[in-house]
Amino acid sequence: MSGVLTIALDAMGGDKGPDAVIPGAALALSENPSLRFMIFGDEQKIRPLLDKFPAVEQASTIIHTDHFITADEKPAAALRNGRNSSMRLAINAVAEKQADCVVSGGNTGALMAMAKMVLKCLPGIERPAIASLLPTMGRETVMLDLGANLECDSEMLVQFAILGSVYSRAVRGHEQPTVGLLNIGSEDMKGHDEIKMAATILSQIKFPGKYVGFVEGNDIPMGKVDVVVTDGFTGNVALKTAEGVSKLIGDMLKKSLKKSPLAMLGAFLAKGALMSLKNEMDPRYYNGGMFLGLNGVCVKSHGGMDEVGFANAIKYAAQLAARNFNVRVAAEIAEVMTQEEQLNLKSAMLQEKAS
Amino acid sequence: MSGVLTIALDAMGGDKGPDAVIPGAALALSENPSLRFMIFGDEQKIRPLLDKFPAVEQASTIIHTDHFITADEKPAAALRNGRNSSMRLAINAVAEKQADCVVSGGNTGALMAMAKMVLKCLPGIERPAIASLLPTMGRETVMLDLGANLECDSEMLVQFAILGSVYSRAVRGHEQPTVGLLNIGSEDMKGHDEIKMAATILSQIKFPGKYVGFVEGNDIPMGKVDVVVTDGFTGNVALKTAEGVSKLIGDMLKKSLKKSPLAMLGAFLAKGALMSLKNEMDPRYYNGGMFLGLNGVCVKSHGGMDEVGFANAIKYAAQLAARNFNVRVAAEIAEVMTQEEQLNLKSAMLQEKAS
Repeated sequence: MSGVLTIALDAMGGDKGPDAVIPGAALALSENPSLRFMIFGDEQKIRPLLDKFPAVEQASTIIHTDHFITADEKPAAALRNGRNSSMRLAINAVAEKQADCVVSGGNTGALMAMAKMVLKCLPGIERPAIASLLPTMGRETVMLDLGANLECDSEMLVQFAILGSVYSRAVRGHEQPTVGLLNIGSEDMKGHDEIKMAATILSQIKFPGKYVGFVEGNDIPMGKVDVVVTDGFTGNVALKTAEGVSKLIGDMLKKSLKKSPLAMLGAFLAKGALMSLKNEMDPRYYNGGMFLGLNGVCVKSHGGMDEVGFANAIKYAAQLAARNFNVRVAAEIAEVMTQEEQLNLKSAMLQEKAS
Repeated sequence: MSGVLTIALDAMGGDKGPDAVIPGAALALSENPSLRFMIFGDEQKIRPLLDKFPAVEQASTIIHTDHFITADEKPAAALRNGRNSSMRLAINAVAEKQADCVVSGGNTGALMAMAKMVLKCLPGIERPAIASLLPTMGRETVMLDLGANLECDSEMLVQFAILGSVYSRAVRGHEQPTVGLLNIGSEDMKGHDEIKMAATILSQIKFPGKYVGFVEGNDIPMGKVDVVVTDGFTGNVALKTAEGVSKLIGDMLKKSLKKSPLAMLGAFLAKGALMSLKNEMDPRYYNGGMFLGLNGVCVKSHGGMDEVGFANAIKYAAQLAARNFNVRVAAEIAEVMTQEEQLNLKSAMLQEKAS
């Protein structure tokens, strides 16, 4: 990564507010000394923390505001009343080119609504999507949408496939990332009309990924594809189910290993191996919902995250900004849009269906 | 369980066909000697297996047929061409009251289509749903629909809530099972219109369960509710994602414990504890997709299951049949239908939306 990157931080978002944000910034800075921060929030709460992390203080500007968005505020209300909130000011900094990207652990709906209004969508993108990285048997998979759009038509799914592919190629370095549409079976006949139409379009157009077909829920953790594309409702449920199952097994394993002295001794001896597994599955290392499709980089940290998690969200935001993600997406989308076959294809299919 | 129960078995369904079905029947019979079997399929393949399991032979009638439904046959084709298939004949046996229930490991779509055509839906039920039990931190949860209905309106979701509640009460013995609608957040404002309308209806009507609100993906493995209600697309993806994550962690744990001699020794000492965890999460013990809402008991065994899994599918089918599940559901549905508030409520909501 070359050159200085400035990250706008919403210090008041998330359950822990500045207590996760400032130590998180310190961790991120220790890994990448070229980062600079604009910290938006209550100066009285931020200052004492900066005293503990002088490196962050040196790399930061504080922009004080008394206002912040609460976790239960509705997006529309946040848009109306949150003009001076730490979240909104942090997004503004990206729009005004003072910062390269913004990271917030606050209210997802409000963050998305504000980011969309202030930063706008990239040309050709109907709606942005939330994407995250997931651990798998193979290399990490990026999945989108994770909750920004409850219902998605075929064009949105196609756009998500492009967004995910550009991300996978530009940021993860996968030359021709494989892309799958999440469905309830791998046969062509499965699923509803929009997903079938998206499959047809994806198999005909040229885009930075390689469409390999439908994938099922169990294919996600197996790492069958680099990019899993789905609507926001299904994606959100699948992601949270995966997190829940992971926690369930972890808890049951712990309980199981405390059942007998022999098991406890075994667990003690295997501690290194068990810890390395725990780290590999640690949700903090996969923290950071990337809002893809906006004309600006915005990353959502999970509200319950500590500084390790927040530092990872900063890292993802910095990667997106450094690799010119938005410029690449805009170019790819423009490229696909000129492939008029896509649009002809869709109208042909619709006509066929209607007749 | 009192009295003899006759189970119609499709011996030709599933990847292993009779090699899983007959040993599975033997296992189920050893647990419940009052079972009797009608075995449908290729007698030449079934006979040699029965020689190995004389107890099953004594408890069984073989009905020979050369025809069977393949895994990739489309439901419509199976309906047209499969009239003499082992699957169809096994379902017919339930319709003709020769058997109390049917179990098949074959093509899910074909099984559902045939079962619906032959057995019909219970009065008041629009569409049957596929339900399964899942392991959780607490007691087992029943989740439906798992793939029979890709898109569900509010009335279908309400019916699934009733079906799941009656199952949980009648078969699992939970006096007033708690019911949650799967959504992307727990706040009232979340989700699409059909799910919000289902929530309003469920919180107003009397039914055998207790509606507790929206649940999220991570609430499923936590065992937050006894019954998780969702559409077939989301349910199918969530279930398979859970299975995949469980397998991923199991595989990573195994790999991790082989990394060093110390870890291997630890794993050896903790073997009992690790095995008990493995058994608790073993998908074979949760095998059996129950087709709820049909006027007859039909259970789908996962196609890849061995005899242990198939025996569990038989057990679930026998429980449903023994506890008069269908009669109970019919009574509950009739009860809810007389609560005219429900229908008035929905039309009032629709009017409000339209105005």
